[in-house]
Amino acid sequence: MTGGELLRILATHPGVEVAWATSREYIGKPIHAAHPHLRGFYQGLRFEALEDVDMGVVNVVFNALPHSVGTVIVAEAFETGIRVVDLSADYRLKDPDLYPALYGFKHPRPDLLEEAVYALPEIYGEKLRGARLSAVPGCNATAAILAAAPLAASNMIEKGYGLIVDVKAASSEAGSRPGRHNIHPLREGSARPYSPWGHRHAAEAAQVLRELAGEGIRVSLVPHAVSMTRGVLASAHAWLREGYGFREAATAYASFYSGSPMVRIKPMAPGLPGDPPDVKNVLGSMYAEVGFAVEEDSGRITGFAAIDNLVRGAAGQAVYAMNAMLGFDEWMGLHTPPIRP
Amino acid sequence: MTGGELLRILATHPGVEVAWATSREYIGKPIHAAHPHLRGFYQGLRFEALEDVDMGVVNVVFNALPHSVGTVIVAEAFETGIRVVDLSADYRLKDPDLYPALYGFKHPRPDLLEEAVYALPEIYGEKLRGARLSAVPGCNATAAILAAAPLAASNMIEKGYGLIVDVKAASSEAGSRPGRHNIHPLREGSARPYSPWGHRHAAEAAQVLRELAGEGIRVSLVPHAVSMTRGVLASAHAWLREGYGFREAATAYASFYSGSPMVRIKPMAPGLPGDPPDVKNVLGSMYAEVGFAVEEDSGRITGFAAIDNLVRGAAGQAVYAMNAMLGFDEWMGLHTPPIRP
Amino acid sequence: MTGGELLRILATHPGVEVAWATSREYIGKPIHAAHPHLRGFYQGLRFEALEDVDMGVVNVVFNALPHSVGTVIVAEAFETGIRVVDLSADYRLKDPDLYPALYGFKHPRPDLLEEAVYALPEIYGEKLRGARLSAVPGCNATAAILAAAPLAASNMIEKGYGLIVDVKAASSEAGSRPGRHNIHPLREGSARPYSPWGHRHAAEAAQVLRELAGEGIRVSLVPHAVSMTRGVLASAHAWLREGYGFREAATAYASFYSGSPMVRIKPMAPGLPGDPPDVKNVLGSMYAEVGFAVEEDSGRITGFAAIDNLVRGAAGQAVYAMNAMLGFDEWMGLHTPPIRP
Amino acid sequence: MTGGELLRILATHPGVEVAWATSREYIGKPIHAAHPHLRGFYQGLRFEALEDVDMGVVNVVFNALPHSVGTVIVAEAFETGIRVVDLSADYRLKDPDLYPALYGFKHPRPDLLEEAVYALPEIYGEKLRGARLSAVPGCNATAAILAAAPLAASNMIEKGYGLIVDVKAASSEAGSRPGRHNIHPLREGSARPYSPWGHRHAAEAAQVLRELAGEGIRVSLVPHAVSMTRGVLASAHAWLREGYGFREAATAYASFYSGSPMVRIKPMAPGLPGDPPDVKNVLGSMYAEVGFAVEEDSGRITGFAAIDNLVRGAAGQAVYAMNAMLGFDEWMGLHTPPIRP
Repeated sequence: MTGGELLRILATHPGVEVAWATSREYIGKPIHAAHPHLRGFYQGLRFEALEDVDMGVVNVVFNALPHSVGTVIVAEAFETGIRVVDLSADYRLKDPDLYPALYGFKHPRPDLLEEAVYALPEIYGEKLRGARLSAVPGCNATAAILAAAPLAASNMIEKGYGLIVDVKAASSEAGSRPGRHNIHPLREGSARPYSPWGHRHAAEAAQVLRELAGEGIRVSLVPHAVSMTRGVLASAHAWLREGYGFREAATAYASFYSGSPMVRIKPMAPGLPGDPPDVKNVLGSMYAEVGFAVEEDSGRITGFAAIDNLVRGAAGQAVYAMNAMLGFDEWMGLHTPPIRP
Repeated sequence: MTGGELLRILATHPGVEVAWATSREYIGKPIHAAHPHLRGFYQGLRFEALEDVDMGVVNVVFNALPHSVGTVIVAEAFETGIRVVDLSADYRLKDPDLYPALYGFKHPRPDLLEEAVYALPEIYGEKLRGARLSAVPGCNATAAILAAAPLAASNMIEKGYGLIVDVKAASSEAGSRPGRHNIHPLREGSARPYSPWGHRHAAEAAQVLRELAGEGIRVSLVPHAVSMTRGVLASAHAWLREGYGFREAATAYASFYSGSPMVRIKPMAPGLPGDPPDVKNVLGSMYAEVGFAVEEDSGRITGFAAIDNLVRGAAGQAVYAMNAMLGFDEWMGLHTPPIRP
Repeated sequence: MTGGELLRILATHPGVEVAWATSREYIGKPIHAAHPHLRGFYQGLRFEALEDVDMGVVNVVFNALPHSVGTVIVAEAFETGIRVVDLSADYRLKDPDLYPALYGFKHPRPDLLEEAVYALPEIYGEKLRGARLSAVPGCNATAAILAAAPLAASNMIEKGYGLIVDVKAASSEAGSRPGRHNIHPLREGSARPYSPWGHRHAAEAAQVLRELAGEGIRVSLVPHAVSMTRGVLASAHAWLREGYGFREAATAYASFYSGSPMVRIKPMAPGLPGDPPDVKNVLGSMYAEVGFAVEEDSGRITGFAAIDNLVRGAAGQAVYAMNAMLGFDEWMGLHTPPIRP
Repeated sequence: MTGGELLRILATHPGVEVAWATSREYIGKPIHAAHPHLRGFYQGLRFEALEDVDMGVVNVVFNALPHSVGTVIVAEAFETGIRVVDLSADYRLKDPDLYPALYGFKHPRPDLLEEAVYALPEIYGEKLRGARLSAVPGCNATAAILAAAPLAASNMIEKGYGLIVDVKAASSEAGSRPGRHNIHPLREGSARPYSPWGHRHAAEAAQVLRELAGEGIRVSLVPHAVSMTRGVLASAHAWLREGYGFREAATAYASFYSGSPMVRIKPMAPGLPGDPPDVKNVLGSMYAEVGFAVEEDSGRITGFAAIDNLVRGAAGQAVYAMNAMLGFDEWMGLHTPPIRP
């Protein structure tokens, strides 16, 4: 589904022409055979086998192959000077030792991990400019980081206690492969945890949040499958340090995201007007709704982030990365307003 | 919701600047107070009271007031030379006698009914060019007409038996006013008929289909509320005349919609590849998926049309009408690909 | 899913003890391995291979194997004197010639087709008493027949025109096998036709409706997949004969279903109080909501039926058949009220 | 909706006859006017005005009036010797000082707060036997307590850090009153926090969990609205103390719920078979699926509980309380298996 979403966004991007697209299942067929909503776009383009494409004709390559499948191809393209935007997890983690445990493979090119820029605009936007290799964040990690970053970067919270990020994720996260539990009758109306003993995206989120904290901080992430087709809502829970409260949180969130055109800050407190952060308000777009609330009695603070998992959590951040890497306006092709309801 | 959708589409339309927007509930508040997904757009614009706006500064006015409320204002604007696109039902029907029974008011300006062009691109696109007043079709009527038009216009079906159009409609059709049966727990997972004794949109559909048929044809429309937030699927059932079948239907649909860039024709027969017409394939867009199938044994033919009720069935057709009336490219601002899933 | 539903209903049936249950995938495993909601029930029972079960220990056998797989086993069980309730399509049709075209197999025991009673309580309840073999109707057919039967049995409608039944079906109808289009993100929010060129259930519905009509009547059925997990809503469209209207329809529906404790009749006309027939009102139960409406202007009449596809459309009618065949109270174990919302 | 659910459960309860039911909106009308799914049940019963009912004819009264409306009536009924099961929040909290802040009223009968037994079977089942007044827990509180109780009652977790319970709740929790954000198009597909600065149910959960902990423990609860009609999933997050892990958690959960027939314990760890706790597995029933998982690296532990908010979180626990108070078998009328899908 990430591939379809990328093609949807690129279809109206003013600076891009798609030279080829690969597939295993749809070789020789038009784009709309796999993505029926795109019928009428990409006329003349047909899926090719990976081994048949001509790398020489493109300035940038997107890798949306399953984890570990494209690692070497990405490295090779990179070395020929082609810009590479990797939507898989292959270049997200800086520590190569994490790959065997989390993704089941020994990383073939640990030397490139430092080279890859983690494509989260609000944090690594500067580093992406002109970068040659970028790793697009996972959707759960994107939401978790956006919710928690101002907390991690400040000294408001008790870092010894750390951050626990509770994530609510849509069914499109699992992609289009049928499986026993993502068939409609068993997923619709369902709410359940998955991988609660340690999700892969936790490592990404922790890597970024620890860097922001500049010191040891415990970070944990617990994903849940809920009954919607698009969107991720992350709730990052922590305890405030003595003397900190709503006012300091407001300052921290406002300053962290000042200058971020696609982050909508939504403070939540009794009596404040406005809607809560809601995935319903950002679908189809790069917007992130980031909120926070303080429970005065207990001292608990929660940061929230609502995003579209396929745009902000995948294909949209990939296009942002491409824009920045090629020297385009960073948000080119990404100004689309969300669709609601 | 139609107003929000119109603002969403206009937000990225290259030829339009929104001068003002009216509201009763949100006077003095920014656009995103009513439409939180549009935060970041229309900065500086605030809702005004209808009586406070300056008609003199605009070239075109959209009327999305409830039926009968804006009838006179529309007429007045029209007479000052402003182009008017009316999203209400006030100028859809040619026969003024239908208004009291269907909409509960005597039409104050029956003289303008013939003036108003029914804004369905595939049928009245020519007439819309340069028109000064247009009436945007209802969503159920749009789907019904798109499904049935090639049947009505041909001599394939037994017109004495006529057309029965069974419509499946989303919850956003009812707009944003809370009511006992559109609250989430009572609508989600529900499927039920409404107004099965004669729906207002039936008169619109019949008006167009009879004109296409050029002779008497019985037309009936039965809407059903199903469990989705966007979309309309219409199934137009009829019996074939002796000697006609799938081949003739294929010709009729192909020729009726030849040259329609936003209609995707989907013949359905055993063994044919391709997905069926599905609202899921057109959401957020002007695309219509139009299919047809023949049951050989019984001689039943069904035409199908799947559309987005808020875009193709309301705001998008309004923008199409504006484009045509102002002499813009008809599809300007309307090329957005659908979002799926 | 039919098997799980049957076990759910039998779990609280006062006259039944389940001796064994078969499976291919779950041999040796407890019932809740396949049906996690039933954990706590059927303790001690484990799935067995079909070839290992002891037919000798049971009074009645339910066949929920895929079409054609259990045809011979059913016949053999029947011949040893065991009552058989067949949930597959294998014994639904009286005409053996229909099996090759509709189900892809030549029927091995055409001699038993007349023996099998079609297990629709309101029509064949009498014949089921003491029967030795019953065929449980398909879910689409059940809804279609309940909606249309009073029309077919009367002389109200133009039989030359006939009946076109437009069916809206839930995702659980497709069972639990994963497939490309029943994964959650592609089914949720979707509405689309399927098999519009002739659905298998049409033959069942036509068989019953023609018998009720006592003369030639065209019957056609067009199913649509809509976005819900349970339920079927059928809308049976016809044209009234001259001189017939709402009053006659009210009499026809009331008299056809007089004495049917599980049919709720819901006349629909302007000004009448009451909710429409809605699948939401019958979920988890044997209740059927049957409505009708007349469009006076055009003379169109529509009969509606809303049922739970897994209870009324499968496992519940199977239990009804068992009750009747064994001489129990017909509704034993089936009085459960529906769950709403 | 709680009232409808209570009537649904009592409809098949072998030990209960409903003498009267009150309403403001439906006085003089049959039960199915408000609860169309119950048509066919309670024939002859009509809603009465509260002031017209005869308290003298009943053994037990259920109070499902809004908070504070029935407080005095409950006290009066109690004093005449009638057993009272209160589904409102009026007698849940032991500390009368919490009522003004959380529910906006000064409690008129603080003397009865200690009398009222909190009707959570697994914790206060013993105290409920023969009790004369019971307070039915809130749905979010029920799920939160079931998820966290074994953690609070043990010495496994760092109590200084405490428990943060992240709750995912269905739309039926908000009842049947229409409101801007529970209309279908704005709730379906949505995920958002509500009252994140301190939810009323937090006080209930904290009251019980602190009693179990026997010492100070920070408890916080953060509810989220997700896109389903029934169910609550609670995730209770904590940090393990040094030296504790999955094995100790398994013992704690197993021993806390030993002898609880309606709690299904679901340990979650890599490689363990079985489904996760899922609201989809318990709908329509008193079952609770309680799970737990440990993230070894970080030391985070999460307890989960999935329940039906209207049965286990409201009407079902009310019936359990009634059973226990009247000396019936505690689970009488509550053995119904869940419905899935």
